[in-house]
This record gives sequence, C-alpha cells and structure tokens, in this order.
Amino acid sequence: MRHDGRAEDQLRPIRMTRGFTMHAEGSVLVEFGQTRVLCTASVSERVPGFLRGSGRGWVTAEYGMLPRATGSRNDREAARGKQGGRTVEIQRLIGRSLRAVMDMEALGERAIILDCDVLQADGGTRTASITGAWVALRDAILTLLKDGALKKDPMHGQVAAISTGIVDGRPVLDLDYPEDSTAETDLNVVMNDAGAFIEVQGTAEGHAFRREELDRMLALAEKGIAELHAAQRAALENGKAS
Amino acid sequence: MRHDGRAEDQLRPIRMTRGFTMHAEGSVLVEFGQTRVLCTASVSERVPGFLRGSGRGWVTAEYGMLPRATGSRNDREAARGKQGGRTVEIQRLIGRSLRAVMDMEALGERAIILDCDVLQADGGTRTASITGAWVALRDAILTLLKDGALKKDPMHGQVAAISTGIVDGRPVLDLDYPEDSTAETDLNVVMNDAGAFIEVQGTAEGHAFRREELDRMLALAEKGIAELHAAQRAALENGKAS
Amino acid sequence: MRHDGRAEDQLRPIRMTRGFTMHAEGSVLVEFGQTRVLCTASVSERVPGFLRGSGRGWVTAEYGMLPRATGSRNDREAARGKQGGRTVEIQRLIGRSLRAVMDMEALGERAIILDCDVLQADGGTRTASITGAWVALRDAILTLLKDGALKKDPMHGQVAAISTGIVDGRPVLDLDYPEDSTAETDLNVVMNDAGAFIEVQGTAEGHAFRREELDRMLALAEKGIAELHAAQRAALENGKAS
Amino acid sequence: MRHDGRAEDQLRPIRMTRGFTMHAEGSVLVEFGQTRVLCTASVSERVPGFLRGSGRGWVTAEYGMLPRATGSRNDREAARGKQGGRTVEIQRLIGRSLRAVMDMEALGERAIILDCDVLQADGGTRTASITGAWVALRDAILTLLKDGALKKDPMHGQVAAISTGIVDGRPVLDLDYPEDSTAETDLNVVMNDAGAFIEVQGTAEGHAFRREELDRMLALAEKGIAELHAAQRAALENGKAS
Amino acid sequence: MRHDGRAEDQLRPIRMTRGFTMHAEGSVLVEFGQTRVLCTASVSERVPGFLRGSGRGWVTAEYGMLPRATGSRNDREAARGKQGGRTVEIQRLIGRSLRAVMDMEALGERAIILDCDVLQADGGTRTASITGAWVALRDAILTLLKDGALKKDPMHGQVAAISTGIVDGRPVLDLDYPEDSTAETDLNVVMNDAGAFIEVQGTAEGHAFRREELDRMLALAEKGIAELHAAQRAALENGKAS
Amino acid sequence: MRHDGRAEDQLRPIRMTRGFTMHAEGSVLVEFGQTRVLCTASVSERVPGFLRGSGRGWVTAEYGMLPRATGSRNDREAARGKQGGRTVEIQRLIGRSLRAVMDMEALGERAIILDCDVLQADGGTRTASITGAWVALRDAILTLLKDGALKKDPMHGQVAAISTGIVDGRPVLDLDYPEDSTAETDLNVVMNDAGAFIEVQGTAEGHAFRREELDRMLALAEKGIAELHAAQRAALENGKAS
Repeated sequence: MRHDGRAEDQLRPIRMTRGFTMHAEGSVLVEFGQTRVLCTASVSERVPGFLRGSGRGWVTAEYGMLPRATGSRNDREAARGKQGGRTVEIQRLIGRSLRAVMDMEALGERAIILDCDVLQADGGTRTASITGAWVALRDAILTLLKDGALKKDPMHGQVAAISTGIVDGRPVLDLDYPEDSTAETDLNVVMNDAGAFIEVQGTAEGHAFRREELDRMLALAEKGIAELHAAQRAALENGKAS
Repeated sequence: MRHDGRAEDQLRPIRMTRGFTMHAEGSVLVEFGQTRVLCTASVSERVPGFLRGSGRGWVTAEYGMLPRATGSRNDREAARGKQGGRTVEIQRLIGRSLRAVMDMEALGERAIILDCDVLQADGGTRTASITGAWVALRDAILTLLKDGALKKDPMHGQVAAISTGIVDGRPVLDLDYPEDSTAETDLNVVMNDAGAFIEVQGTAEGHAFRREELDRMLALAEKGIAELHAAQRAALENGKAS
Repeated sequence: MRHDGRAEDQLRPIRMTRGFTMHAEGSVLVEFGQTRVLCTASVSERVPGFLRGSGRGWVTAEYGMLPRATGSRNDREAARGKQGGRTVEIQRLIGRSLRAVMDMEALGERAIILDCDVLQADGGTRTASITGAWVALRDAILTLLKDGALKKDPMHGQVAAISTGIVDGRPVLDLDYPEDSTAETDLNVVMNDAGAFIEVQGTAEGHAFRREELDRMLALAEKGIAELHAAQRAALENGKAS
Repeated sequence: MRHDGRAEDQLRPIRMTRGFTMHAEGSVLVEFGQTRVLCTASVSERVPGFLRGSGRGWVTAEYGMLPRATGSRNDREAARGKQGGRTVEIQRLIGRSLRAVMDMEALGERAIILDCDVLQADGGTRTASITGAWVALRDAILTLLKDGALKKDPMHGQVAAISTGIVDGRPVLDLDYPEDSTAETDLNVVMNDAGAFIEVQGTAEGHAFRREELDRMLALAEKGIAELHAAQRAALENGKAS
Repeated sequence: MRHDGRAEDQLRPIRMTRGFTMHAEGSVLVEFGQTRVLCTASVSERVPGFLRGSGRGWVTAEYGMLPRATGSRNDREAARGKQGGRTVEIQRLIGRSLRAVMDMEALGERAIILDCDVLQADGGTRTASITGAWVALRDAILTLLKDGALKKDPMHGQVAAISTGIVDGRPVLDLDYPEDSTAETDLNVVMNDAGAFIEVQGTAEGHAFRREELDRMLALAEKGIAELHAAQRAALENGKAS
Repeated sequence: MRHDGRAEDQLRPIRMTRGFTMHAEGSVLVEFGQTRVLCTASVSERVPGFLRGSGRGWVTAEYGMLPRATGSRNDREAARGKQGGRTVEIQRLIGRSLRAVMDMEALGERAIILDCDVLQADGGTRTASITGAWVALRDAILTLLKDGALKKDPMHGQVAAISTGIVDGRPVLDLDYPEDSTAETDLNVVMNDAGAFIEVQGTAEGHAFRREELDRMLALAEKGIAELHAAQRAALENGKAS
C-alpha cells in the first residue's frame, strides 16, 4: 500500500470545476488530490506573426506557479524577470499536447491561450494542467460554436495526461509530492481518447529503468488516462460552463 | 441607486476564507464582491541585506494578477520579463501599509513575504489585497507565537483599505470595475483600527476634485474601513486557520 | 523654527530657469532650495499604439536621478538594467498630473515626453519635477502655437505640486532631505490653479496620522501651491524661452 | 530506402574527434553526418550554492547553436538577451542525462560544465550533444584521475542518445533535418551501456503514435545506441585526448 | 575658416566649473563649447570582487546621456533596460583613460566611480567627459589626502582627451556636432601631461585615411591636449572645490 | 627572439578555410596561430528599420566566444542575458571595418550579417575576425553576383586587421595571448589594400606610449596587413567556396 493508502494503479481524487472564474471563455479548476491548478482558455483574434494572413489558428499555453503554491516559497518569476527552465519546459509541453487534437484550419485565424496557474502543488502539476486545460479549451470552443464564430468543430479528440513512476522499486500511478520527490523514475504520458500517445517523457531520477519497467509504467498510464478522459466527459456533461 | 443596487456608502459582500491553501503560514482568499485575491504570508529566516545582523525584521509584499483575471487577457509579467508600473506601485503600497502595524524589533530578524495574487478582478484589487493580507499576516504571526518562535506579539493594530470615488458626480464607496472605469476621481484609503490614516491616495481621473469632495470621500472610507476591520476580526474568530 | 530657519508654512527659495538646455522644445531647471531638476519637454509625432489613428495626443513622463545626485551614490538604473519601483511610481505620478490639464483632442495626434532628471537631490524631487515640468510643457505648447502646428491652446490650467509632512510632531511645508528622512508622515499634493486636487498621496512613515493632521497638511499644501503657481507665471513672463 | 540511401535502422556516419580545442579538460567534436557539435568539459572548483560545503559535486550542461548553424540564420541568443525555450529544454536534458552516470560523492565538491555548441545543424543536435558530451566528460575525468585530483573513478557507465521517428509512415533511426522536419513522430532516447533507459522523450508532431509504433522505435533506438556506445569506446581507445 | 569661425587648430571655449553639485567628492561641469557634461567622482569603500582583500583600488566610469541632450530625443537607457553599444564603449574608454594615471596600490582598497552625464551634446562628449572626469577625480583625491584617508598621492599625471577629424578634406581640431556628422575621419586621442599617448582611436567614417593625414591629426591633438592640460590646472588653482 | 621563436615583425601561421560550414553564403575558418574563429556571412532581405524603403543595404557583425574558447571558462553570454562590454566593442569594430569597403547603394536593400564566433582563443581574436569576415563577406557577394542577384560588385577593396604592441619594451607584431597579457601597449590596426587606415585603436595598458613607439607599431602593422591581404587573395584563388 502507498503512503496515502492508494493502490498502485489508483488515481488521487479528481475534480474539475468549470466556470471557476467568470471572465475567461473557458475556466476550470482541476484538482488531482491536493494539487490544484486554475486553467483558463482565452480566445484572441490575434495570431503569432508567422500565421498572419494564413487563415490558420494557433493554440499556446503558459504555465505559472504562485510563489507559495509549494512547501517553501519560490521566487516570483515576474519579479526575477524571467521564467525558469522548468516553467518553459512545462508550458511547451502543454501547448504541444493540446495542439495535437486541434485542426488549425478549422479553428480559423485566431489564437487560444491556455493559462495554467498552480494555486497549490502536491505533485503532478503538469499532468493536471494538461487534463484541465483540455476542458477549458473545450469550453472555449463550445462558446465559439454556440456564438456562430465557428461553423465546424475544430477539435478531433480528447487529451489527458498522467504521471507514473517507480517508487520504492514499484511502478505506481499519479505520484503525489512525497512520492515524486523520492521516485527513482518519473514518466509523464499524454494520450488521446483513441488510445494513442501524444507525448511520452520518461526520466531516470535515480537508477536507469529497464524495458519491462517502462512497459509496466505505460500500462498504468493507459489505465489512468482512460479514467481521466471519462472524468473530462463527466465534467462537460454535468458541470456548469463559465 | 448604484448599478448593482448598493447604497452610496455600502460595501460589496465581503468574504475572507482562511486556510485557502495548505502550505503557507497564512493563506486567505479575500473577496470584495466578484474581486477575489489569494493572499499568502510566508515566513523566511532570511532578511534583506540592509537588515542582516540587525536583529530587526521585515515585511514585504508582492502582487500579481493572473493573465485572465480580467475581462480581456493581459500579458503574463513573467513572460514579458518584467513587472509593470501598476504592479510595482501596488505591491509597494501593500508592503508599506502592513509594515505600519508591525514592530520590527519584536518581529526579530526574519522576513514575512505577503503574496497577493488576483484570481478574478472586478475593481478594488489593491484594497482587497491589503485587507486580506492583514489576515494572512495575522495568521502567520499567530503561528509563530503558538510555536514559541515569537515571545511577544509584534503587531500593534489592524489594517484595512477601501476605495472611494466620484461616479456620475456622486461620491460612492468600494467601486467595482464598471464604476472604477468611469469614475472621475478615485481615492484609496488605508487606515488602522485606531481610526488613523496609513495611506491616502487620491487621483483625479477626469476632473480635479474639490476639498468638500475629498472630505466626503474620506468620510465614506472611514465608515467602510470600520466594517472591514470588523470583518477581519470575525474571520479570525470564526474561520479555520491554514 | 525649522532647522534651516524657515517658518512652518514657508517654501524654500524657488527658481525656474527656462531655456536651460538648447535642444528641447521646453527646457527648465527647477530649484526648490538645493533640489535641482532638469525638466525637458520633447514633442514627438509618434503616439503610443493605442492612440494611433485616433487623432488624440498623449503626455507622458520619465524620471531619473543621476547616480550621485544624492549623499551616497546610487546604482545607475541603465546599468542595472531596470528602473526601480520608486522611479516608476514617480514618473507615473508626473505623467498623470500633467495630463490632468491637457485636452488630448486639442493636442492632436502627437506626444509630449517630459523628462525630469534630478541633478541634485535634497528632498521634494517629485514635487519639483511636476512644478518644473509644467513650465517646460507650457514652453513646448507655446512653441507649437507660435509655429502654427497647433491652432488652439490644449492646456486648460496650471499644475504644481508640493510636499508637506509632520516633522517632530508639527506639520510643515516643503520638506528638505533632513526633514523628509525624519518625518512621521509625508503628504504630496498636486493641485491646479482653480484650487482643486489632482493627486493627494499621504503616507504614514512612522505613526498613522489623524484627520485633523491631514486637514492641517492640506491647508499648508494649498498655500504653498498658490505660491508655486505664481512662480510659474512669473517664470513664463520674465524668463527667456528655450 | 531513405532519401540519403540509408536503411531504416542505419545511423549516419559517426565521428568523434577528441582534443578538438586545446584549453578544455575535455574537448570533442562530434559529427552525426552533417551535424557537428563541439562539446567541451570544464572543471570548476566552484559548485552551485545548494551544494556548497556538502562535499558533493555537480554536472551541468549548456547548449547553444551558432546563429548560422542552420539553413537560415537565427537570432543570436546573447544579443536577444535570453535563451529560447528549445535551448533551455535541451540543455536541461543533456545535464540530466550525464548526471545519471556520475557518482556525485565520488566526484567531490567540484562542478563539471559541459558546453555543447552546434557548429552545423542537420537534425539530431541534442542526441549528438549527449553522445559527444559523454566523451568530453570522460576525458575530463581521466585527466582528474591522472592528476590525482580524483582517487576513485566517479563514472559508472556510458551514456549515448539517438533519435528515432516515423517518417512517411515508417519508423527510422537517426533522422537528419529533411526527415525531422517531415516526421510524424519524434522519439529521443538516452540509454546507458547496461541497456537501461535514462530518458525517453516522444512527441507526436502530426498524428498520435500507437503502442506498437513506440515499441518499434524503442527497438531501433536500442540498436543505434549500442553502436554509439561502441563508437565512444573506440574514440577513447584510438583518439588523442585534449 | 570653419562654420563657427574657428581656426583648424582651435579648441572651442573650454570651461570647467568645480563643485557644480554638492554631494560628490568631486563634481565638475565641463563645457567644450555647447557640449556640457557633469562629471562626478564618488569614493566607495567597496571594490569589485576580483580585488577584495588585495589592498589595491579601482577606478571605473559610467557614462550616460540625458534623453533630450541631443537634437532629437533618444530613448532613456534605464527604460529600455540596457545600455547601448556606444554607451558601453565610451564608459570603458573613460575608465581605462583615468586608470592610466592612477597607482592602484597607493589608492588602497577603495573604488572611485566617475559618472559622466551629458546634459547637452554638441559633439565631443567622450573627450569632454575624460577631460572633466580627471578634474573630478583630482578633487576626490585631494579630499582624501586632506582628510588623511590617503597618505600618499596615488595620481602620477594629468589626462585629457580631444577629437580631431577630417572635415571637407581638412584636418581640424575639436569637432562640434555639425562637423562630426559630416567628418570623413574621426580620431579621438587621450594623452597624459608627459606628452605620451594613453588611447588613440581613429575611425574612417567615409574614406580611409592615409598615414600623412593621421600624422597631421595627431599633431593637432597634441596641441589641443596641451591646452586642455593647462585648463585643468587653471581650474584646480582658481576654481572652488566641491 | 619572442617566446615562440618569431621575429618582431613576423605573423603567426595564417590559415583561411573557406566553406568550413555548409549553410552560410560565406563561411570561413580563420586561424592566426592557435586562435581560431568561424566567420559566416548571411544574406538577409530584411534591413534595419532606418533603411527600409531606402534602396540601400547594410553590413553588420556579431561576435561571440564559446565559453571554453579560453584558458578558464567564461560565462555564456546567452545565459547571463546580456553581451559584455568587450563583446559589444568588438562587434561594432568588425561591422564598421567591413562597411568601409562596401558601397551600400550597389548592395541594394539587403543586409549581410557577419557572425564571428571564436572556437579557440590565443590572442588577436578581433583582428582574426575582421580578416576572416572579409573573406566570408567576399564569398557571399560572389554568390550574389553569380546568382544574378547583384549586377555590380558593391565591394571596393580588401580589409584586414592586425595587432601590434609593446612587449618587454619592444614593438612586436601579432601578439598571442601570453604576449597580449603582458603587453604595455596594444594597438589594433585595420587597413584596406590601398594602404589606408580604417581603424586605429591603441591602448596603453601599462605605461603611456610615445610618438616614436606609435610610429614603429604602425609600420609593423602595415607590413603585417599587406601579408594578410595576400593571404586573403590566395584563399579566394585556391580555396573552395562554401
């Protein structure tokens, strides 16, 4: 049994609260246990320079952590004057993941910016961000469809993400902070609802991992992501939109 | 009557939720109507250079707004690589206001950093920040007193802040965004619970204001701040700490 | 009596030298006692992005202090790579104050940049900057009117500023550095020549100030600003333009 | 057959020239076909702050691309004033990969900085960097051992990296730029010489990849990396040190 | 005859006003015709890191131009967030020039920072800066000697600088802005009072210059610098110190 | 005799390898003894703002040193977030030097960017950069002429550069690092193939230099540069282009 009583292949309690803030076209508070991320989707009529006049759209992401989202306070990136390497890496991952289910022609020449801001961190902030950002993005697209700004749905699938890792020699799903900080290996997986991979990022923190360990972690991720996809659908069916 | 039905001297509904996040020594979600700011107080054993070895402490503040806290998205300051002038002005104001009720000798050589992050903006974010930060600071001090890290209470008063302004020719209390954006004059007032002023910042946005208008705004502010001081005390008595 | 022999309601000797440098459309060296600020007004045909094509103009200000304008040398902001919080706060104040007497429609689509550079500091640099910048701005507008670039005068009033404060328990006018550094309260006031307020910024440095103290400081400020308005008019009548 | 005549599981010609420059403790020009990266290892007695006094060492990496290493010129990062997101991501990957085979206790309180500068880019710069940096690092450690600065070898394995991807529907090994820019999926793999994984980073550029595609790419990577490990050993045996 | 009536080998009117501002250990307003630079020398007990504990001192310089020192306004470097290439080049030149007559052992472990701020520019700001900075530095050293902080004079000579150039095909001395902007060649020379060269910086703006032109410009510079050295001595004898 | 056996007026072995990298329009590895600089010339159809629509072109340069090009590692400028003063000075010198032989009208509205990246430093990197950049620039122009993009040759001469200095009291040519670091005087000279000067930059490092020393150094430079011009021509005749 894990330190919080979960089974090896068990997610933490997942919650997605749509309409958490009022201004954004999509606004979702996603919780993976104690990890809480506010994901907003903002529609802009202004695309990056390389797309101007192309008729094609863009989806991008920015990630941030409130200074005291963590056990000890981190410097505020705005005050330091630059985003750290970890932040840059994560926001690039979120953006790539969500672009993977978007038809940019169908989106038309507009941009959607996904802001993922961690209010409280307890491991898995990047996977919670991707999973929640998909719901925020979906809400924004639904708004555009309802308003008639979009004629055709540009999204062709769901995206969710989960972490797996090897803790105390055992592969486990959805690591919280105490597990993450002692894991020997950490594997983040992003998948669509057709069961295919969008991103696979595995890192040996302590000892290098063998092929059979990788296979076991991939299987755990597949199981977890299927549950997250179900949770996303449930949120969209039951929850109120922003 | 005002656009939302309030009387001229009426605050918006005020809520302060202590323990909103779990890591900080003090963590308060303060709401002035639809304006929501997360205020955390972090205790650090590291003081700024000019105080090292002095035995005296420090209180400072940082302020941020999530990119989509507002009606249209603002650039993320961390991504732009610097804090804007408005942010700098506000965080300096918050810091000065809270230092005004703190005995730095009694605090001892430690720093308390107040992070005020706006989750949703609807006018009055700086006054909500000061009012909520005081509660977060109080919670952090109570923790230090309880833990025995502090022998003597270094706080000698309450601090709260409110905005007043002249909207459509009439002085009103606690402007929301629609009022703020059309106000002719804007006056932010910070007071302690002895009824004295810590900061008074009045700006003529449209037409310059006469002395009798200033007097009327100051009276509104005094009334509103007394109610905020009561709300702070109520929060500390009833609410759960972080 | 004050440390330099002034009465409580007495300004330091005020001098305004027009045409102090030769290139700017307006160039004024303003002196409040030993405080000396060079204020220049530069006319630009380029307005900020949000005004392009609007037919409306803009007035903005930048503030700087030479590194050794003060008793001990400060780092050069250009070398540190950013302007400090105090600088940002002051230059925003100067800009707002001068925009308050300018009709932006009448100015037409052009910008006037006011540069206030402190050559020597002895307290009150922000109030001297505002007072001197008004004269520099006036000179620039007079040039535009004389050249026929402007048909109609876009300025509808005078602006001047002064500090007051409570030093050794007594409200006094126009604090110099020794007074400013020991003041319990500091109040900067910006007024137009119709006797109305443009900005009121009061800060309790030591103890919070009571309403009657605020009233006394406001009265001192009104007296001092009337004298500054007269000095501005005298400078324009007698002094040579740039 | 691939556009350059290679088989699907065939590496480009690999060359590693030790002692390419004269100052660094390790200096290797690594070539994967037309991709050329200069990898240097610099020994420093100064460790990052969090390790000072710990007796433990550190290995870190920095990555850069000469502005005209590519088909069209990229802005110089030093001139733009910041490293791009891609650069940050790659240098973090290189550092993590090499730390995976280093015993930091045995290294002692010193840092080794690996600089990987791309002189000419034709796809696979990050995998060439890791593979070459390992040889540079090895040379630096051999120098420290020979000089007696190290008593015990702190390295416990070899590290090499290769890219695989799906191009025109077929999994291939070691993509060059024309392949990389049209690949549907891109998988970078870092492995040690015990056949275990240090990093696995797969990204769907066009369509998401299925589990059997991932398996095929992993198999290609295993084959390629075994050849790179052999090439590293050959370079160390035959090549001259710096 | 030149456009302002000067002979080819004639300096503009030179003025050096000591004690121009009151705080700095040395403060000189230097004027070469309409070019006016405020040079201050600040003594600091804090030396750069590489000299700490060495017992040796340092002299360094910073240069700036007020935004409207010139005919059209330049962006403020502090607001842009970095010093331009020209600024960096000039301040390095000033620093090197003044270090050339300073015995760093005799100065002891302290730093002198020379700030050269251009109030009004009309060509030759770098040569005026060097010439004026030497007087400011001398004043600072005289103060240290008088106070007993220095036992022995660490300065072993005078430094002054002048520009020469080829304008309309003729070598001339001390170019003003109209001459400088049309010069084919520009040569800045820094010399000591023993008639030896400290810096020679010649640049062909239009056509390359021949050896005989260089010789003629060097001769003009020698003559001009001798006059500047005399003017420096006169300023020290007659002028009042800061 | 010098420490490496050279005569006082003898250059180090000079090599210029054209086509060192494959992408740039001109790409030359220049070697002055152990100093090795990769110079590339990139043609861009985008000119700086002040030239847009003018029909005139531009030549500019950027300079960089790989972190471990030197005996001890230097911080990477891209990581520090700004280019150092020395870098800025050198790249401005390279740009000016090459613009001196280019007819910007004949070049037409296009820019050529010269990147000079030091792979290995042993003194004289700026003079090697200028000398090699001229060959890279020439190759780029030859390409444009051959492609018909240019009708008329915009280059009207050769440019090369060399250092001279006074080492142990004797003027010598082409200082390597051990000489440079002990030189009393350092003179860098840039000349065209008509024997005229483009830049002369002399700096007294230790003692000021007399006119006869300057004359001797200029004579050494003239001799060395004539040899470099011959080497440039030989490289163009024999070497293969990129």
